[in-house]
Amino acid sequence: MSQVIPVGWVIGGTWRMCLEGISLGGRILAEGGSAGDAVCEAVKVVEDEPRYKSVGFGGLPNGDCQVELDAAFMDGDTLDFGAVAAVRDVKNPVMLARRLSSERFNTFLVGQGAQDFARVELFEMRNMLTPRAKRAHEIRRRRMLEENLSPYDGHDTVGVVALDLRGSMACATSTSGLFMKRPGRVGDSPLCGSGLYCDSRMGAAVATGLGEDIMKGALSYETVRLMGEGFSADRAARRALREFEARVLSRGRKVGAISIICCSPRGDIGVATNVEFSFAWGSSCSDPKVYIARPTGEDGDLSVEEASSHWLEAYERRLNLPPEEVF
Amino acid sequence: MSQVIPVGWVIGGTWRMCLEGISLGGRILAEGGSAGDAVCEAVKVVEDEPRYKSVGFGGLPNGDCQVELDAAFMDGDTLDFGAVAAVRDVKNPVMLARRLSSERFNTFLVGQGAQDFARVELFEMRNMLTPRAKRAHEIRRRRMLEENLSPYDGHDTVGVVALDLRGSMACATSTSGLFMKRPGRVGDSPLCGSGLYCDSRMGAAVATGLGEDIMKGALSYETVRLMGEGFSADRAARRALREFEARVLSRGRKVGAISIICCSPRGDIGVATNVEFSFAWGSSCSDPKVYIARPTGEDGDLSVEEASSHWLEAYERRLNLPPEEVF
Repeated sequence: MSQVIPVGWVIGGTWRMCLEGISLGGRILAEGGSAGDAVCEAVKVVEDEPRYKSVGFGGLPNGDCQVELDAAFMDGDTLDFGAVAAVRDVKNPVMLARRLSSERFNTFLVGQGAQDFARVELFEMRNMLTPRAKRAHEIRRRRMLEENLSPYDGHDTVGVVALDLRGSMACATSTSGLFMKRPGRVGDSPLCGSGLYCDSRMGAAVATGLGEDIMKGALSYETVRLMGEGFSADRAARRALREFEARVLSRGRKVGAISIICCSPRGDIGVATNVEFSFAWGSSCSDPKVYIARPTGEDGDLSVEEASSHWLEAYERRLNLPPEEVF
Repeated sequence: MSQVIPVGWVIGGTWRMCLEGISLGGRILAEGGSAGDAVCEAVKVVEDEPRYKSVGFGGLPNGDCQVELDAAFMDGDTLDFGAVAAVRDVKNPVMLARRLSSERFNTFLVGQGAQDFARVELFEMRNMLTPRAKRAHEIRRRRMLEENLSPYDGHDTVGVVALDLRGSMACATSTSGLFMKRPGRVGDSPLCGSGLYCDSRMGAAVATGLGEDIMKGALSYETVRLMGEGFSADRAARRALREFEARVLSRGRKVGAISIICCSPRGDIGVATNVEFSFAWGSSCSDPKVYIARPTGEDGDLSVEEASSHWLEAYERRLNLPPEEVF
């Protein structure tokens, strides 16, 4: 499908939490599987792991202590797109999004309508609230009252991009969104062009961070568009983020945390971020590993290095801490 | 705010139905009112008119005979954005969207969460289903069964763009979406970059048509981006639509009906469409009038002419027909 001959397969995703998922996705790609299968199976692994507190089962609840989830899928060969938002009780929102992407109409469903569709399509339903997430909600609620703490935090989306051996690309996202968000709040993750975008001839991109800001810049679309103009993955993502930040800041508005992962049809992975940001990628030439990107100046430059064993161990310890010590 | 000195005010919108609204909006602009006030008041007029069957009160119901509405607002000076989707019982969804645009978090609310927020904020609630729309639903349902008719039709969004005397721009959208849509279905209209986009330095654009396709192209963002690169409003909208269509068609996929209205910071109005499309605009130099655009070839060229009195009278007659003769 793609106009360039890919050198092999590539898969990459946002945050340390995607590592196990992209490792599975990498095995799918190495065996000749499709980019669509790889990104969805990768995101599903993250959704199913209760210790990852911002995605799927165990995701952080909204202000009413309900877990409402957003997810999306895009196929870069066909531009087929599907998404769900503010959906409850669906075990794997990303699979529901992918199912919707095969429809001609009604490809983006929210709330009760999305749940009803999932039931009719025999998707597995599950109470997505865990005791740990419920306890986190109680603690946060108390601290909000006692310390006047901002409720909104923990808006980490898992987003995965992939290029398969046939040159096809796909991407997918999944998140529980802002911790303590208003019921019905939708962020950028399920929005085509904002949280994700993919065209096998141009590239694939996913975003994570403050969705309210990301959607104002159509940042995933802009990153892919720039790759389509010939920019490398890194340069496309950084230029998209830098120009958007400049546009917002010049109006006297703040810009929240934003990070982007992208991949070009030639298989180069790009990253842009305005905060410390972990991500992971692997390819036919390189085992899946975790990297840390840190802004180094005001012009969007980053330092990127492999995560140290010390960093990875500290992350693992935090995953197993009781909610009292995290929230 | 804008980098060019505007020649005056301009307001334009999608479909004949926006005429009364943009006439009011034009009076607001002529008196020195803001683009934000003008576009919201214009859309509100359309929402309040029960004979306009795809927006607000009297909008076409979904497959469950519930009127679920989508709306959005964007301020081109600040890039503030707010939206609601799949919301029931809110008299003026566009006003709720504008209210949300002043928030830092939770700017896009859907379903029950959006309704609950509207109640707390003392927005006027109303059963948005009219006897006429209910009857249309019954007729369509019967014809679907008897004639195997596609249920999906009537996806006309009102979208309005404006430039005020201070050079500020804004845009807003409102729709009941696809007739007979699945409950919870969201189209492009409330999605930043898809159904609408605005930056006072670059321009404003709104889209109408098959939302499932429009969102795959981030078409409002792309149109505004091209105006920001120096394209005239007409050339920006037509290029955005033409290139997106080519991208989709080359994958063997169809493209649904799509129309775009846009305005540059210099005040020129642009239109692109792949179907017969009515729109209206007015400015400090020209009274609000209805125009008809028709595709003339395969390269996105259009004929645009003022709507004849014959066309306008026929439209008026259709508005007053009983549902039996329309659906």
